[in-house]
Amino acid sequence: MSEGERFTLAEARDLAVKALVTAGTAEGNALSVATALVAAEADGQKGHGLSRLASYAGQVRTGKVKGAAEPQIERLSASAIRVDAGAGFAFPALDCARDALVSMARSQMIAVAAVYNSHHFGQGGYHVERLAEQGLVGLMLGNSPQAIAPWGGTQGLFGTNPIAMAAPRREAPPLVIDLSLAKVARGKVMAAAKTGQEIPEGWALDAEGRPTRDPEAALAGTMIPMGEAKGAALAMLVEILSATLVGANHGFEASSFFTAEGPPPGVGQLLLAFDPTPLSGGGFADRLEILVNALQSQPGARLPGTRRLTAREVAERDGLLVPAAIVAEIKALLR
Amino acid sequence: MSEGERFTLAEARDLAVKALVTAGTAEGNALSVATALVAAEADGQKGHGLSRLASYAGQVRTGKVKGAAEPQIERLSASAIRVDAGAGFAFPALDCARDALVSMARSQMIAVAAVYNSHHFGQGGYHVERLAEQGLVGLMLGNSPQAIAPWGGTQGLFGTNPIAMAAPRREAPPLVIDLSLAKVARGKVMAAAKTGQEIPEGWALDAEGRPTRDPEAALAGTMIPMGEAKGAALAMLVEILSATLVGANHGFEASSFFTAEGPPPGVGQLLLAFDPTPLSGGGFADRLEILVNALQSQPGARLPGTRRLTAREVAERDGLLVPAAIVAEIKALLR
Repeated sequence: MSEGERFTLAEARDLAVKALVTAGTAEGNALSVATALVAAEADGQKGHGLSRLASYAGQVRTGKVKGAAEPQIERLSASAIRVDAGAGFAFPALDCARDALVSMARSQMIAVAAVYNSHHFGQGGYHVERLAEQGLVGLMLGNSPQAIAPWGGTQGLFGTNPIAMAAPRREAPPLVIDLSLAKVARGKVMAAAKTGQEIPEGWALDAEGRPTRDPEAALAGTMIPMGEAKGAALAMLVEILSATLVGANHGFEASSFFTAEGPPPGVGQLLLAFDPTPLSGGGFADRLEILVNALQSQPGARLPGTRRLTAREVAERDGLLVPAAIVAEIKALLR
Repeated sequence: MSEGERFTLAEARDLAVKALVTAGTAEGNALSVATALVAAEADGQKGHGLSRLASYAGQVRTGKVKGAAEPQIERLSASAIRVDAGAGFAFPALDCARDALVSMARSQMIAVAAVYNSHHFGQGGYHVERLAEQGLVGLMLGNSPQAIAPWGGTQGLFGTNPIAMAAPRREAPPLVIDLSLAKVARGKVMAAAKTGQEIPEGWALDAEGRPTRDPEAALAGTMIPMGEAKGAALAMLVEILSATLVGANHGFEASSFFTAEGPPPGVGQLLLAFDPTPLSGGGFADRLEILVNALQSQPGARLPGTRRLTAREVAERDGLLVPAAIVAEIKALLR
């Protein structure tokens, strides 16, 4: 059995663009989405990579995602914008938001974009890393369809609600810290359900709020947050900042990111950019290296993002090995 | 044996002011600190309450804390300030920062204060709750002396690095979410060390990075973060935003908040204020109630901050019962 097919990053992106355009996505939006999916695939974040393409295309076909949406920016002040993603993909809206944030943050030292009417944003790290490449510190919070219950409760209210931050480094790629608040990704439970395997204790609760090792019961229930009670509180904090504050649907109000049916999920993202040189009194770049060096001087400690950068280097050199099942899905989209 | 002495909140504040002034603190600074400590005591957050007073006074006496420091504000833009706490207490600097943030956020929708050269800020919730009382959403990140190691490492680099957020509610006190990133407070390990008791597995690592139940070994080692590896990454994220970004000392560079010896800790805080009405397109207040109601409709789920508000009501009605040992400490400070 073939393990898959190898593509250069450019080839993979072109294929993804074609698949999205064939489904009815506007060319520019398709390029934005494809670029982010291929970057996730290259970084080894396969849950946010090409495996999403068939589901994305299906959502464009039914109109759950508006393939031709044009993000609309409303300027609230010299340092604040709202971005209406127009029930389209999140990536074009976040591209617009980041472009605006860069110039606002350079003149105001801080800037915020409140993105609503939005969709799955993939790797949070992707968006903040783009800001860090412009010399800014980026911080992003986003919500997603319900996955985590309030502590002591039984029903999912909050998404897995990732937090991502990137900081520019003097002579190295940006430092990126990117974490979702579920102890493990729901995708791992879905994979176990497909193969009929039990999941470890501590991953999920059933619909009555009891710990479960049955993946089907877990999918009908909720994911346990990292850090248990504290993590559930943190998920609510992110929900308020990335959904309530921006005027987006909460996790429990949002439709699935996967299925093609139903109304648009309409979730939200809060994206912040800081200009670190003036905010730190000039010392940021040197001081960050001191912190990184202190971490790296400890045997056994690893800088966050190291594995991702290694995967990226390999992908840039050798291309992507895309599993045969995903290649088949993509080729089916081109017909 | 007497269990303690009862004081009204006003009496407790006056006593704390006198103790701090006697040690050499300027009157206005003493009032700022005393107000925050008594608020923490009333909220049942005793680790940030009157138990700190003797240590604070001792630090003023040796000059580790400058009792007469006047916080200096540097205005970077219409939405960004730096605040030099002047190696004084954090509370007067944060009072200044919050006052400035309120007017900036009302005109710019977002504002940031980068506070450096600072000290222990007590309950993060206290500061953001004041912003929420002005109709703003407040977010605060702060660092503290080293307590948490990078994941896989053995030496503390990061503080316990609290994250606090408060949001204004329509007809209820602000919703406050306030969590430190250590699984449990180091104060609990100190208490166990005093009484010679073992601590539960999972709280701390010894100086070689091994799990320990010996409180002395734990104090020589590091605290385990909530959420293990993800929590350690989150602690680094908060360290970068609240120390590197504001130009403050990192956790591993900061002296103790407890002892009177050594240089000032010089830690940092990042305080953000958002104007939720324009950022949400007008729906914030209604939408937050929808989220809160969804949470409260789940049996067993409790809104964050409930216990704190209950303790506060009791303290406002019945006053504070201050343990005899703390009363003795305070009285000794007045001589």
